[in-house]
Amino acid sequence: MVCTVPPFTPYKSPIQAFSVTKPSLAPPSGSRDFLPQEALFRERVFATVKSVFTAHGYAPFETPAFERLETLSGKYGEEGEKLIFKILKRGEKAATGEADLALRYDLTVPAMRLYAHRRNDLPRVVRRYQIGPVWRADRPGRGRFREFYQCDVDVFGSASPLADVDVLLALSRVLEVLGLKGFTIRLNSRQALRGLMSACGVPPVKHQAALIALDKYDKIGVDGVSAELRASDLPQRATKSLLNDLKSNNPEAALRARIESDDEGKAGLLAADNIASRVAPLLQGGMIRVDPILARGLDYYTGPIFEFIADDGADSIAGGGRYDNLASLFMKESVPVCGGSLGIERIIMLLQDQVGFEPAVGAVCYVTVWDEVDQGDALQLVAALRAEGVSAEVDLAGGKLSRQLKVADERGCRVVIVQGPDEKAAGEVTIKEMESGNQRRATKANAPSVVKELIK
Amino acid sequence: MVCTVPPFTPYKSPIQAFSVTKPSLAPPSGSRDFLPQEALFRERVFATVKSVFTAHGYAPFETPAFERLETLSGKYGEEGEKLIFKILKRGEKAATGEADLALRYDLTVPAMRLYAHRRNDLPRVVRRYQIGPVWRADRPGRGRFREFYQCDVDVFGSASPLADVDVLLALSRVLEVLGLKGFTIRLNSRQALRGLMSACGVPPVKHQAALIALDKYDKIGVDGVSAELRASDLPQRATKSLLNDLKSNNPEAALRARIESDDEGKAGLLAADNIASRVAPLLQGGMIRVDPILARGLDYYTGPIFEFIADDGADSIAGGGRYDNLASLFMKESVPVCGGSLGIERIIMLLQDQVGFEPAVGAVCYVTVWDEVDQGDALQLVAALRAEGVSAEVDLAGGKLSRQLKVADERGCRVVIVQGPDEKAAGEVTIKEMESGNQRRATKANAPSVVKELIK
Repeated sequence: MVCTVPPFTPYKSPIQAFSVTKPSLAPPSGSRDFLPQEALFRERVFATVKSVFTAHGYAPFETPAFERLETLSGKYGEEGEKLIFKILKRGEKAATGEADLALRYDLTVPAMRLYAHRRNDLPRVVRRYQIGPVWRADRPGRGRFREFYQCDVDVFGSASPLADVDVLLALSRVLEVLGLKGFTIRLNSRQALRGLMSACGVPPVKHQAALIALDKYDKIGVDGVSAELRASDLPQRATKSLLNDLKSNNPEAALRARIESDDEGKAGLLAADNIASRVAPLLQGGMIRVDPILARGLDYYTGPIFEFIADDGADSIAGGGRYDNLASLFMKESVPVCGGSLGIERIIMLLQDQVGFEPAVGAVCYVTVWDEVDQGDALQLVAALRAEGVSAEVDLAGGKLSRQLKVADERGCRVVIVQGPDEKAAGEVTIKEMESGNQRRATKANAPSVVKELIK
Repeated sequence: MVCTVPPFTPYKSPIQAFSVTKPSLAPPSGSRDFLPQEALFRERVFATVKSVFTAHGYAPFETPAFERLETLSGKYGEEGEKLIFKILKRGEKAATGEADLALRYDLTVPAMRLYAHRRNDLPRVVRRYQIGPVWRADRPGRGRFREFYQCDVDVFGSASPLADVDVLLALSRVLEVLGLKGFTIRLNSRQALRGLMSACGVPPVKHQAALIALDKYDKIGVDGVSAELRASDLPQRATKSLLNDLKSNNPEAALRARIESDDEGKAGLLAADNIASRVAPLLQGGMIRVDPILARGLDYYTGPIFEFIADDGADSIAGGGRYDNLASLFMKESVPVCGGSLGIERIIMLLQDQVGFEPAVGAVCYVTVWDEVDQGDALQLVAALRAEGVSAEVDLAGGKLSRQLKVADERGCRVVIVQGPDEKAAGEVTIKEMESGNQRRATKANAPSVVKELIK
């Protein structure tokens, strides 16, 4: 597996980078600045994600940072609604506090709005991706920000299970190429969950409460689920059935058997099994399993649903599923849609822990400047190096050669070029490799190709 | 010059893409959605810009979309102040209309804030770039948006003219590599302008009015400038001196002579000449000239100033200069800074006119699906192609082969692979080149390398 992010130990951890020294100069609460080293790391991750999505036939949708407030309202539930950043209407309305725009809360609703708006300009099946920031007026905390990136893929217009497979493979491939150490895809389906609820005799109005309780099984165990089920006032038979299954020797098998006693449930499991059987043989860095307990995104998803868990950290690093009904909020036509979202901020944190930072913020080759007269020569050499495809920069710090070498070293430049009076008299330059300390002479004309050879 | 944006005639112009069919589904006024074709074009431009900046030793700063309102206030003049998008303070203050945050108005002030905040973590000289959206509550119009991208480079901490040269070369190189057809850099300096004002006897309080009038010379001619100067109530001698110079056979030479009669003016011209002489021999797609009339960014810049004009369009496509005083708004220490900003939205429009779009939104290779049983084979083939570095996608549209071929064609896929019953019986696939219509058979195992050869 090729990892595009080279290994290194960070000289600044993301946590330090977030510390506040002068409040008025710090970024606003819950947002972050990134200095070059970390910004480069993030850019490289995003570039890798894009290249994988592109290799899978996905192409970008871009939508504005803000939407009409009415576009976002009523889409994210009561809790979500409170977290929408509202923007004051400009002009005379500012004094009244009237807001007409809002920062996007996720990338899914804006993409759906765009799809509905431009339906006639789009082919029947659209694979789209989007990587960008979203904003939530949440209480900031470790790993929880008010501005953070999301990274989505969606397939609009295909009801085929191959579309679900396509999304899972694209997301998996990103994690593999980024070099993340192992992940598990948990896969289930809304049909299977409805089947389970029917088979246990949970009335529709109680589905959500029962599923929320079940979904916590991995974290709070059977006793925790038991307490939650009892608190949510289900019919006694339903609670008993669910707990019996969870307490059995093989809870998954027991739940599967119960689900399969319901026609819709059986069909749902079959769909999930079918998707898993397509995906499994193509995974290289992870595994997939059908998990009849997984119950994410209750009021949103309509078909297969999934979640990616990192082996290292046990955190959810991606999730998604089929949501064929969201379109109906924006258009009359019904549109089959499935998609997923990478928790890219969490993935970046895991990568920084597992793989590390790339420290170099400077060009590969650093060209020193001997004196003012020498500036033109230095600039010409830099241009010649760039023409050979070598990134190169000229010293701007000034001062003695030893100081210029120190700057080159700090910037992680691999090669430094010196043109002193001796070299100049001979029409040559000295080429110094920073890691080994080796240095050699070359003619000015030859210098770019010598450097190119050295850094290969 | 390698152009990373391949030629094509757009199927949707950016203007059509901005048309409004259903108001409630359109993006908010002054903002834009981008469908894949245009989004890909923009991404490629941004990627090219980044690669050039990186090759020149620049590294990214990233700052949040919003800043504290107080960070932005008082930085952009009276007009700018009105255009700042304010965000409602969350929680109980929402009802009163109190705003504590605002969307960034440019990338320069946030970068300065970040530099001041993290000064101790940064080396003495910092080359930074940033590409990202900024927001202005402006009246939208053709080419004027409320959300648009800017693209900045700055050198913090170097007072050397080499830093100004460095910025000019980085910006020029972007235009050259993007393949923009010709540009002229107009270069001047604030010292030269102050010298001109002194030599003409313009009192300091009238400098700005006189310079604004002069700056319009290229657009409104000598009569226009004359009217503006007279309207701004300068001392009679000053108006006469300026108009005499403008009406002479060689206005530039006359202005230069007058400027050089002042010590500060002379030093300013020398500095500009020095920078131009360093930059000129290294330009490949443009030219540079010292223009004693250029007077941009009056209350902001302190040293050399510049503007890039596209030969095709006569529009300003970049500008910048030295602004050593902005730092003092954020920190006690004075910091020499110079930088420039590409008008990247205007550059993208020029490129779309001059160079055109890249239409393909699909993968290079399209793998058709014969029937449901065949899905696994198709997915395996797609995986094998990607392993060879060929971007590949599997059909999700379904239906007859002819329809799948049509989809592949619309997506700009270059090669289509068919595995029908005949092929399957022979353990082979048919590989069809879309442009020529040529097709050939290959074994399943050989197919990826055959495709790789075809698309070379």
